[in-house]
Amino acid sequence: MYNIGIDLGGTNIAAAIVDENGTIIRKGSTPTMSERDYSAIIKDMAMLALKLLEEEGIDIDDIHSVGVGSPGTPDPENGIIVYANNLRFHNTPIRQEMKKYIDKPIYLGNDANVAAFGEYECGTGLECNNLVAITLGTGVGGGIVIDGKIISGSFNGGAELGHVSINYNGITCTCGRKGCWEQYSSASALIRDAKEAATNNPQSKLNELVDGDLSKMNAKIPFDAALEGDEVADKVIKNYIKYLAIGIANVINVFQPEIVVLGGGVSAQRDNLIKPLEKEVINEIYGGKNAFKTKIKVAKLGNDAGIIGAAMLYKIYEKV
Amino acid sequence: MYNIGIDLGGTNIAAAIVDENGTIIRKGSTPTMSERDYSAIIKDMAMLALKLLEEEGIDIDDIHSVGVGSPGTPDPENGIIVYANNLRFHNTPIRQEMKKYIDKPIYLGNDANVAAFGEYECGTGLECNNLVAITLGTGVGGGIVIDGKIISGSFNGGAELGHVSINYNGITCTCGRKGCWEQYSSASALIRDAKEAATNNPQSKLNELVDGDLSKMNAKIPFDAALEGDEVADKVIKNYIKYLAIGIANVINVFQPEIVVLGGGVSAQRDNLIKPLEKEVINEIYGGKNAFKTKIKVAKLGNDAGIIGAAMLYKIYEKV
Repeated sequence: MYNIGIDLGGTNIAAAIVDENGTIIRKGSTPTMSERDYSAIIKDMAMLALKLLEEEGIDIDDIHSVGVGSPGTPDPENGIIVYANNLRFHNTPIRQEMKKYIDKPIYLGNDANVAAFGEYECGTGLECNNLVAITLGTGVGGGIVIDGKIISGSFNGGAELGHVSINYNGITCTCGRKGCWEQYSSASALIRDAKEAATNNPQSKLNELVDGDLSKMNAKIPFDAALEGDEVADKVIKNYIKYLAIGIANVINVFQPEIVVLGGGVSAQRDNLIKPLEKEVINEIYGGKNAFKTKIKVAKLGNDAGIIGAAMLYKIYEKV
Repeated sequence: MYNIGIDLGGTNIAAAIVDENGTIIRKGSTPTMSERDYSAIIKDMAMLALKLLEEEGIDIDDIHSVGVGSPGTPDPENGIIVYANNLRFHNTPIRQEMKKYIDKPIYLGNDANVAAFGEYECGTGLECNNLVAITLGTGVGGGIVIDGKIISGSFNGGAELGHVSINYNGITCTCGRKGCWEQYSSASALIRDAKEAATNNPQSKLNELVDGDLSKMNAKIPFDAALEGDEVADKVIKNYIKYLAIGIANVINVFQPEIVVLGGGVSAQRDNLIKPLEKEVINEIYGGKNAFKTKIKVAKLGNDAGIIGAAMLYKIYEKV
């Protein structure tokens, strides 16, 4: 028995046939071309899935369900995306459209939540009951799984961990608030701060590593420069980790999960990030060292968390 | 069938016989005298409960369970308080001791969480599935109930909503962090700010209402002075509500509960608090006005939330 997992992104649709253990049997992708009508996008999602089945020689009868992770606010019960800004979805009937091509149970979730569920079921969280996933990318995404259920609020738009304000007079966020955590701990924030430090410190290795072209700055470069002993980059990284620790301590003080799992580009730094981060988090959490039982780990599934989590959604709704 | 609810406080033990609907049949209290050994305290809890039964003429056979809300970190499974600073509890076997006097199922929870559960089962949350309770008192307490379960983390010490930092360079909290929400939104914080404003503004009504004795300041006086048109007090209240809104928006962005229920002394202000608060919260939440579906309400059960919630704990553990 297999499930199909689909990760609908603003740029690409990724899909995979996934076995019961969460192993990807075959995967593929196709451009979203998000300017199109939803019906064309959903048709392409289905066609991609059917193509994978054909390529792999798997019969549709061996497919148990299709799961979809989508940006925006889902209504999982009715199989609808209530609202997704980037895709111009508004009460978009994903399940109904999908059923035209694949007549199987169709499950639906928000992409960040679904990726967290993937890590919970098949990745870092394999043997834990509670997990909070934090994605350090363009923004700071959040996904909360407690006792096998995705926690996203009564109106399915919660778990916006990046939009917890850690500085009420701080940097204005794209959401309109001041001091949202993602303005300090996203990869974008790190890149912004590294660029600023490079501009203010012409002697810094940061400039050398981007060949004097700040548009080449990415989230890896400040870590590389710091490792090479650059003091300016080291300060940028220390600051970044301080803010990350503040937000993670907020998460732990509320959820005390078994695991906080970090994903997104910055998490590729692994121990360069996790070790100093843990030291800062201990100083911030309620109850201090004795209360610090949550493990901070790097996501295992990487970009596949979304498709694997989508393929596993049936476990939530069928209460397997 | 009745249940006994016990709310163990640092100063008083409150207990009640509660019927299946959450109605208090008879209640009483006795001093905690927290300097005593735990066994003496727990014996008094049991004796108080038995006395209430005798006074009401209810047979012990008509009692289904005993629930206890205690400060500190519980281990509900094993019926132990792992740690409670004020009571000097350390791995204290509440269930085992209690069973010596009342041989019924004994259930246990953290006091703030249990009070939230009381509101959920029998108060403001009567017909909702998700609720976050926030107590504005000496500190800012939190209790989270989702689908009938108390969410307090894998290590039972979570839901510390008052220790979410909203200002990482802000006021140092008793917990050691900077900028914890409770430093801005507790009744204590309001009193602190009102005292400061009174000192800096001798002409303010705040001074008049405390008869020139700032030690008489409480959380009601700045609201009273503001209602009487005192500009200094009005500014204190506006600031207080601003901070409260920031923290509540953080809670909503994460949990999107059906209801945020406010308890503690400050919540007695009812519409004077809730109406301006809602306006501020709308400006702070992710998705703005359209996403604002959470209702902000004042707790219904007041000080009885703890004993009623304790009496209802069996519903969690017996999965009624």
